[in-house]
Amino acid sequence: MKHRIVFKVLGFLMLIIALGMIPPFLIALVTGQSDVVPFITSIIATTLFGLVLIYSNSSSTETIKTREGLAIVTLGWFFASVFGALPFYLSGSVPTFVDAFFETVSGFTTTGATIITDIEVLPKGILFWRSFTHWIGGMGILVVAVAILRVLGSGGFHIFKAESPGPVAERIVPRIKDTAKILYTAYIIITIAEFVLLMLGGMSAYESAIHTFGTLGTGGFSTRNASVGGFNSPYIFMVISIFMIMSGVNFSLYYDIYRGKWKDVYQNSELRLYLGIIAVTVLAITINTNMTLYNNIFEAFQHALFQVSSLMTTTGYTSFDYEQWSTFSKAILFMLMFVGGSAGSTGGSIKVVRILALIKLVQREFTKILHPRSVVTVKINKQSVADDTLMNIASFFMLYMMIFIIGTILISLEGIGLLGAGSAVAATLGNIGPGFGFVGPTSTYAGFSAPAKLLLSFFMLLGRLELFTVLAILTPKFWKS
Amino acid sequence: MKHRIVFKVLGFLMLIIALGMIPPFLIALVTGQSDVVPFITSIIATTLFGLVLIYSNSSSTETIKTREGLAIVTLGWFFASVFGALPFYLSGSVPTFVDAFFETVSGFTTTGATIITDIEVLPKGILFWRSFTHWIGGMGILVVAVAILRVLGSGGFHIFKAESPGPVAERIVPRIKDTAKILYTAYIIITIAEFVLLMLGGMSAYESAIHTFGTLGTGGFSTRNASVGGFNSPYIFMVISIFMIMSGVNFSLYYDIYRGKWKDVYQNSELRLYLGIIAVTVLAITINTNMTLYNNIFEAFQHALFQVSSLMTTTGYTSFDYEQWSTFSKAILFMLMFVGGSAGSTGGSIKVVRILALIKLVQREFTKILHPRSVVTVKINKQSVADDTLMNIASFFMLYMMIFIIGTILISLEGIGLLGAGSAVAATLGNIGPGFGFVGPTSTYAGFSAPAKLLLSFFMLLGRLELFTVLAILTPKFWKS
Repeated sequence: MKHRIVFKVLGFLMLIIALGMIPPFLIALVTGQSDVVPFITSIIATTLFGLVLIYSNSSSTETIKTREGLAIVTLGWFFASVFGALPFYLSGSVPTFVDAFFETVSGFTTTGATIITDIEVLPKGILFWRSFTHWIGGMGILVVAVAILRVLGSGGFHIFKAESPGPVAERIVPRIKDTAKILYTAYIIITIAEFVLLMLGGMSAYESAIHTFGTLGTGGFSTRNASVGGFNSPYIFMVISIFMIMSGVNFSLYYDIYRGKWKDVYQNSELRLYLGIIAVTVLAITINTNMTLYNNIFEAFQHALFQVSSLMTTTGYTSFDYEQWSTFSKAILFMLMFVGGSAGSTGGSIKVVRILALIKLVQREFTKILHPRSVVTVKINKQSVADDTLMNIASFFMLYMMIFIIGTILISLEGIGLLGAGSAVAATLGNIGPGFGFVGPTSTYAGFSAPAKLLLSFFMLLGRLELFTVLAILTPKFWKS
Repeated sequence: MKHRIVFKVLGFLMLIIALGMIPPFLIALVTGQSDVVPFITSIIATTLFGLVLIYSNSSSTETIKTREGLAIVTLGWFFASVFGALPFYLSGSVPTFVDAFFETVSGFTTTGATIITDIEVLPKGILFWRSFTHWIGGMGILVVAVAILRVLGSGGFHIFKAESPGPVAERIVPRIKDTAKILYTAYIIITIAEFVLLMLGGMSAYESAIHTFGTLGTGGFSTRNASVGGFNSPYIFMVISIFMIMSGVNFSLYYDIYRGKWKDVYQNSELRLYLGIIAVTVLAITINTNMTLYNNIFEAFQHALFQVSSLMTTTGYTSFDYEQWSTFSKAILFMLMFVGGSAGSTGGSIKVVRILALIKLVQREFTKILHPRSVVTVKINKQSVADDTLMNIASFFMLYMMIFIIGTILISLEGIGLLGAGSAVAATLGNIGPGFGFVGPTSTYAGFSAPAKLLLSFFMLLGRLELFTVLAILTPKFWKS
């Protein structure tokens, strides 16, 4: 591996992270709270580190290939989280640096798991930074870098591929700058739309921005201890539900809509399955919970829609303490934690397109039992999926389950219930945030030991970078020249 | 589908089931308990039904192909369970016919889940029949039929394949009668060995036979309400532990040992992984539980070994109420419920060879990330595994998880805890027996509603016949001519 070019790109990334701290710094200045100096210190430290990395490796003429791409992305997310944690730590908003690191990883990976038990007392600049990391992380901090930096040339391809290794990557990679431009345009337009709609609902500009960041990035950090439930407004529940669902859709479909290709959107099989799962589960939970907990069916529907959208898209906002629901409704929510958003969305977890491919793989086996010599091609959106891709998807699914199981066993050493341990791993690996029991919607991750917090941070990074990128660096083969 | 030949074979199967009721009937006669008449009635009814099926279809000259094989196996297990349930129902040992059906499916599929809350009051003939179904079901009730009946000719191939559709089926199918003979010889020798060793430990001949049936078939029905724990003997714990592990090994390896091919056994990668998982998990649980629950490390080891062997081989005996263990140890047990025995053993669940293949599939993906154009063959026991087989295994894994998840959601409608619902589905689908919470080691399945019992019975059959066989019959394609 050529390390000079890796460090050089990481240097530029640090400058972008420092740049990202400017908006919260300005808010700190305006509000005049205790977080002004911490932000200045953090920005200077991050900038200096970035400049050192750039100038000590400026002579590099190395090129970025697969290995360098994997290293840049993994180390990039790690360093971004280390330096992004400075404002939390220096302002004393969190007790230890491990906590600050956990919170920042949770932000950038759009997980939304928090170790802060009382959010409402924190300075506004800090809370803004906390949610801004969702927005930056949502579309990939390195995609931003790739789009901005011209120095990378074709190396951007390997970075993009390592950061977005999903099964559709091949399709959008060839014109990487165009793709980034299209996705960012959609991202920004939808951001503005939600921001305006939330303000129309009576939310302050500050809280509207924060909840828009949390929604668009499918993150889940809020300004309220009771999450979105703290607003207690059916209008706000509905707006955020709809935008969570929109953020879990493949963003390239918005470009199709812009170009008037409605038929492509209508026939998109991932979108159909995505909306189908939401429809069926919302209906089931509405009927199931209305019988017991709510005054009327609309109230039941509103919270069912909100929680289904939130957990399936891996956002993690809560409108209601869903642990009060029946086991049936909770079982559905737990299952949705393994579904996730669409490919090309900001949602995490296994992702709908992979589940679709695996369902089709199963269907094909049934055909093969009755007609052993038949050759059946698996098709998604009318395009055949190569067997290599299917095996990659199957491997991903197996690896995801293995990490989930081994992770659950390790986290259960914390001495918490099995449901708490399992859902903590599912919620971090899937970049969701809240789970059940020990990490339920009214709890935080504060109760975990420091080693557990680091392990869960690792799971968040694993999940956000879709397992293989991070783990490839840990294999002996990676380090053989 | 040609239904006449299907019914004809089912008729012969019924005769074999009636034959299987003779030993428990003799025990009923000797003990002179209330179950004599119920056994006579059951034997007559089953024989009559069999004869009607045979003679009404005796003119059939149809041949057995894939469809007929699938139908014979699925219907065969269903009818065997319906008629096998007669003694339980007619003797009044269980309150309803659904309960009797559940108990019989649980027996034949070697699950060992029971709806009987007080086993110890039941007549001895009934308990013998209950455990004898494990022994018959262990190696496949239709394999018995195939081995006995000469009328089937090459049709036996399709029956064998439908009943044992595991990834190694191809290897042993060509010489099906030889294979059945080898497997049965090993099965009977090991049965006798365990029976003798249990008697040497002071167990009565009657209880030794019953626990041998439960061990060899990896079933788990006992004569005691406290399961094997009721004997409170380290010697018996150790003997049953070792024989449970032996029953989870591919039986063809015993033939290799007989032929002196020790090297093949030593190098068998499934066996290595199987024993490796047992060793690591027993060690982890021993260390973890000794610190809290037991007087000394041997006591901890003994129960760790017993419970790991029991849940991993899908037997389901208990030596100790493992719900008293820490979350860590319970999480390991829960995970083992998804591992299962080896291919070609009586153990159920996903099976070690499939997990091995999936791990190798994941390893291959890591190689492909760094060397995208490389062609790497997945090898098991030094033989390359075809991509078609890998995709079949991946499909099986996905389907297993889907059924587990959807099943858990449905069973959670019973209003029990999520852990109870999930483990009930895992324990029936994996043919294990006890789980956690509502179906923990000190509970039974008696508390479920009748529809839930039928659904769980369906899962037991699905699991025993490795999903595809039963589900293929439910697809529209199956019924198209």
